Order: sequence, then C-alpha cells, then structure tokens
Amino acid sequence: MDMHRLTRELNVKNENKIVMLVADGIGGLPIEAAGPTELEAARTPNLDAMVARGTCGLSIPVKPGISPGSGPGHMGLFGYDPLEYLIGRGALEATGIGFHLGANDVAIRCNFCTLDASGNITDRRAGRIPTEESAPLAVRLRDISIPGIEVFVEPVKEHRFVVVLRGEGLGGDVADTDPQATGVPLLAPVPHNSESQRTAEVAAEFARQGAELLTDQKAANAFSMRGFSARPALPSFEEVYGLRAAAVAVYPMYKGLAKLVGMEVVGDAKTLGEQMEIVKDQWENYDFFFVHFKYTDSTGEDGDFAGKVKRIEEFDAAIPAITDLNPAVTIVTGDHSTPSLLKAHSWHPVPTLIAAASCRPDRCTTFGEADCVSGGLGQFEAKYLMPLALAHADRLGKYGA
Amino acid sequence: MDMHRLTRELNVKNENKIVMLVADGIGGLPIEAAGPTELEAARTPNLDAMVARGTCGLSIPVKPGISPGSGPGHMGLFGYDPLEYLIGRGALEATGIGFHLGANDVAIRCNFCTLDASGNITDRRAGRIPTEESAPLAVRLRDISIPGIEVFVEPVKEHRFVVVLRGEGLGGDVADTDPQATGVPLLAPVPHNSESQRTAEVAAEFARQGAELLTDQKAANAFSMRGFSARPALPSFEEVYGLRAAAVAVYPMYKGLAKLVGMEVVGDAKTLGEQMEIVKDQWENYDFFFVHFKYTDSTGEDGDFAGKVKRIEEFDAAIPAITDLNPAVTIVTGDHSTPSLLKAHSWHPVPTLIAAASCRPDRCTTFGEADCVSGGLGQFEAKYLMPLALAHADRLGKYGA
Repeated sequence: MDMHRLTRELNVKNENKIVMLVADGIGGLPIEAAGPTELEAARTPNLDAMVARGTCGLSIPVKPGISPGSGPGHMGLFGYDPLEYLIGRGALEATGIGFHLGANDVAIRCNFCTLDASGNITDRRAGRIPTEESAPLAVRLRDISIPGIEVFVEPVKEHRFVVVLRGEGLGGDVADTDPQATGVPLLAPVPHNSESQRTAEVAAEFARQGAELLTDQKAANAFSMRGFSARPALPSFEEVYGLRAAAVAVYPMYKGLAKLVGMEVVGDAKTLGEQMEIVKDQWENYDFFFVHFKYTDSTGEDGDFAGKVKRIEEFDAAIPAITDLNPAVTIVTGDHSTPSLLKAHSWHPVPTLIAAASCRPDRCTTFGEADCVSGGLGQFEAKYLMPLALAHADRLGKYGA
Repeated sequence: MDMHRLTRELNVKNENKIVMLVADGIGGLPIEAAGPTELEAARTPNLDAMVARGTCGLSIPVKPGISPGSGPGHMGLFGYDPLEYLIGRGALEATGIGFHLGANDVAIRCNFCTLDASGNITDRRAGRIPTEESAPLAVRLRDISIPGIEVFVEPVKEHRFVVVLRGEGLGGDVADTDPQATGVPLLAPVPHNSESQRTAEVAAEFARQGAELLTDQKAANAFSMRGFSARPALPSFEEVYGLRAAAVAVYPMYKGLAKLVGMEVVGDAKTLGEQMEIVKDQWENYDFFFVHFKYTDSTGEDGDFAGKVKRIEEFDAAIPAITDLNPAVTIVTGDHSTPSLLKAHSWHPVPTLIAAASCRPDRCTTFGEADCVSGGLGQFEAKYLMPLALAHADRLGKYGA
C-alpha cells in the first residue's frame, strides 16, 4: 500500500508550516548496564519542553531488525517506502558528492585498482592510494571522449571516484566489472537487459580509453566499475504532498537526497546556527523545511558516547530558533539509530516527537528512548511520519465520505 | 513485502548463536477479576532476570484478532508469513504424526464413517470408533495397490487416519469427499485444476478398494477424504537466514514443522531436561536452536490454570541451562496464547523477550502480559522476530548505503 495514493488525493493547501528536524543517528544505547542512552544522558530542556506539549513515539526506519543506510533512512522519513523506492549505489555515491543526476544519467562507483603485466588484478584498491594522488588521476579521465555521450568524472576519496555517463538510451542495469578477487582480470560490463545494452558498450569504451590514460601508473593503472544506476524515479514533494519543500543541510549527501524528492536546497550553511538562520530567512518561501544535523551520527559512528551527548545538547540549544518561528508542526527525529556502543547504524527504533496544536498529549516528559516507548505515536514505520505531519498541519482532507 | 527478500540479501555469517525458546500457548488471561494471568501468577526468577537485561514486547501471531493453529503459529515465529506460507490440512496432519512429506507426496486426512445399505452416510465419525479398533483397520488399508503410486496409511486417533499418496504428477488441489452431512453419499474427489486430475483419480481408486477392504465392518465401513495437500514449498533457514538450525522438540508436530523449514531435528528428548542436554551437546554444530515446550499449551487447553502456572515454573527452572551456554541472543516466546479461561488457542498477543548485548533496555521488570505492554519491542507481528534475532546477533548487514 503506497501512502502516496492517499496523500496525493487528500492533500490540501494552507499556510501551515512544517519543520522536520533530523538529528542523524540520534537513537542510541547505554554503554553500561542500567545506564542512560546518549539522548537520555544529554541535558535537553528545549526538546523536553516540546515533549510536554507534543506526542512522542519510536520510528522504525524500514522494518523491525533492519539497519538502514542514509538513503533508505531518509526515504522513510520523507514518506517514500524505502523498500519500494530504491536508490542505486552509483546514484547514491554521486548524490553523496553533490552531483545532481539528470534523467539521462547513469552513475557508476569506480575503484582504482592495480593490474599486473598479464592484466590480472593484484590490488583491488590500488594500495589505497591517497586522495592527493588519486584525485588528479580521476581528473585525467575527463579526457575520455565517446561520441554522443557526455562524460563526468568526480574524485571521491582514496581509490574511489564516480563516473556519470549522460546520453540518450542509457539504461542503468549493468553488472559490476569488479570480480571481487585478485589474480583474475576485470570483468567486462554485461547488460542485464536490452535497455542497458548501450550503457555496457559505453562503459567498455570508457574502461578501454581509461586504461590507456593510466598506462604510466604503477598502482592505479586500471579501475573497476560498480553499482551502475540511473537516477531513481521519485515523485516530488509537491506532487505527493502539495508542499513547497526546502532542504537546509550541510553535507552533500543530504542535500542530494532532498533534491531527489524535489526539495530545493537553500543556502550554504556550514553550521547548525547558519542552518537556523536560513530557515528564518526563507520562512515565507516554503511550506516544509528539512533540517539535517550530521554530528549525532558521526560521533556515534566514532563510538564517542560523550561526544554524541554534547552534540545532542548542541542540537537542543538550536531548538528555540525554530520554535520562535512558530511552525504549525515541528518534528524531531532521526533517520536511524547510531549507538556509540555499536559504532554503526542500527535497527533500533528512533525517538521521535511531533509538536502541534492538534497533538494528543501522552505521558512522556523527556525526550529519550525509554520514555518514547510509551509515547502516543507508539512504534510506527518511518514512512508514516509525513502523513502524520500533514494531518497535524491540517493539510490532509477526509478519506471517504 | 516478504522479509526474506531482505534477510536473504543482508544475512552475514558469524559465530553468534541464537536460541529460540517456545513455550507453546504461554500467553494467558486472569481467571478472576483483577487477578493475574498464569504467567503473572508463576514465580519466574530466571525469566525476570532476562527481562532486566533484555527487551520485551508482545508478539501478534498472525494479525490482530486471529487465533492460529500450531502451523501458522510456528510459521510466524520462524519468520515465514503465515498468510503467505500455507500448510494444507493434510500436510499438517501428516507432519503432526511425524510423517515427513517428500516432494512427490499428497497428504489426505481421512475419517472413518458409516454408510447404510444404500450408501448414504449415517455417521460421519463411525461412532467415534476407539483407536484400538480403528488403528488395525487403517493398517488393513495398506493392502491397497495402485499402479505407479506408493501408498502410506497411518492411524491417528479414534476415527482419524492419514493417507499419503506418493507418485509423479500428483497435484494437491482436490475437493473434500466429506459432504458435511448425513443421509447423503460421500462425494467423488473432484480436482480443482488439471495438475490434480491424476490425484483425484488415484484417490477415487483408493476409496473404491478401501470400501471393499472394509465391507465386513459395521461402523467403519467407509471413509471420507479431506484436506488434500502437497508438501508446502518453504525455503530453508539456511537459504533465507544463512543459519544452520536445530530443532529440539518432544512432539512430532513441532519436529515436523521445523523440518519443513529445513531445520535438523536433533536428539530424541522426552523431557525439558533432556532437551536442554541436547542443546548443550549440539552447541558447536548449529547457529540456531529451536526448543519447544508443549505443556504450557496443553494445560491451557485443559483449562487448568494452576497446572499451567506450574508448567511455566518448570519452564523457568530450565532457563539457566541455556544462559549457562551464553548464547548471543536468547528469545523467549510462544506460538500463540492459550488462556486456561478459554481452554483454547487465542488471538491475544504473546509475551516475548529478546536478551542480547545490543538490546535497548526498557522499563519491564517481570515477564508477564501487563509488563510486556510497555516493553521496548512494542507489539509486533511474529514474522519480525527472526529479523530482530538476526539483527541482535549481528548477522544482518546494512540495507542500502
């Protein structure tokens, strides 16, 4: 059941503004028995005040037990079923470095690798060549010329770079050329369907010319191509919710994900304070604001419990800048949990609150995992958050008479 | 959405062991106003200790309001959507008596019945003929011979027996021959599709020869055939979860259900103590152990509240034998509730706990129905228990990048 069938039909326009504050990876775990989680350890007076007048719950990013990457995590928050709307690995990598994919694009994740004299792979990552050496090599590959095709090559980090092929009739379903082994040659790009025949041919020609351009190299004398993917076909926020949506993010990945669902990326903030300024400046121009805060995730990934607590407190301190704008609906959530204990994204449900005039009160008093268990939103799949947001903003009409 | 699509793709192997302890029908109801349930009345210090370090919740066996039989109840626990993976009545009956169905088998539940001189049914259960009389008659039917078909006839209890037809090209979709009425003749076996044409013909021949073999009988001079079913097509635990799974059960039904999903039945325990010994002995040979305890269900079915309390305490006393093995993940649950008050399987959600190092604590302190309502797992469909188990065992990779 696609909720968009309902939101397309039922959404109505008004002046009510919705702000979705995403503290990436905010959910956590205790690091000692009977201890608090990061969120429970943090002093969060502003979030707690919102809890008092809002409704809390726990958001399941995909399905119980499933730990999502940033792509599916945000698709869920944006109300796009993460099991239905898949973003290919190449498309996600391109998105992550700020490359905005067009309708005629196929994105490919590439790894520099080392081949021996007989053409067999000796190192699948070219000795993890440092970025300062690999980036100029990636740029060198921009000299590749293929008739009818526009070629983009973007350095990423160490042995990784992204290639985007732009042209008519390029399907996105081509097998990886990385054999996932050494002592064997690279594979030829094999199309999975007839629509991707041309893509495979172009990729083979790209690889051929690329190898020529790299003949003088010892380590990075070739590259594998993986995760071929076209731009995912996602209907826009305007289409499915009737919302003019703005994204206020610092990192390219989250700007890119927002663009994929038709949000406009506004401003060029470097800090949470600047993000809040941008929301204020743009307040009259949009119905919906997605504000992304990265550091609750990165501290979790680092296993830095105390650092994550501090970042949560920094996030809390920014809340009044939003409440001062008096949005009709404020949502605070995360795209997944990132417990410092696990140093990774996890499947644990994410503390979530909705504050709005039409919230039904619950008995939660603080914003924390154990409190949210008994919140009025219960445990719900993240994809239902947008319909709930629209409802609390009085932007969804009645279903049926 | 089939969760197996995700678990097939994301499962990873490691040394972490998972134990699923199923106390059949463990959920219950109070027998007096404001009284405790059976589980709440029982002294369960070992389960309560696991609650303190684990996460609790309530498992909905199929869907809210649906009381499952043992088949769908266990399919849910094993992570096979019980609405998608159907086990035919004949296949379940054969499984229940320990008959392991092969790929070319069709199983049929048969009832001895009584026909009058004109061939009309006078008693659909042959006067509930006692087992000691009916079993030899069922064995007599093994003399039936049909070219190209291997015939198995297994006594069950009173008027019931099971027939398995083994041969090429036998579909499982044939209508019951029981007209569910007296004063009318048995129906002919009618195929529902062309694949089951031959099955219907073989069944008709089986019924014809069977009636001849029973002409000397007064009560059981014929039989109806119901619940025709082929072996259900279930992918194995190894395929969908990457788990080498062992089943440690006392009763044939549960061994059979476990075999249907590719578990290996280990040992031949007669008591819970012996089951625990087998788990210990086999500890290094499997990744997953399914341990089934029957008597919490049978006492519930008998309406024996005090007896069920006692059985729960017996179950609790066995817990240390598992915790001593230090499994990465321990699950305690049931396939459904069997309240003594109702003397039957019920739809009430089932108290469930997961204990693992990556559990998020909740505020539950004892293992009981009312406590589990506020558990961190919330209320969830049983089919999500296996993905949660894999996640807590660090056996599921990230979904998407």
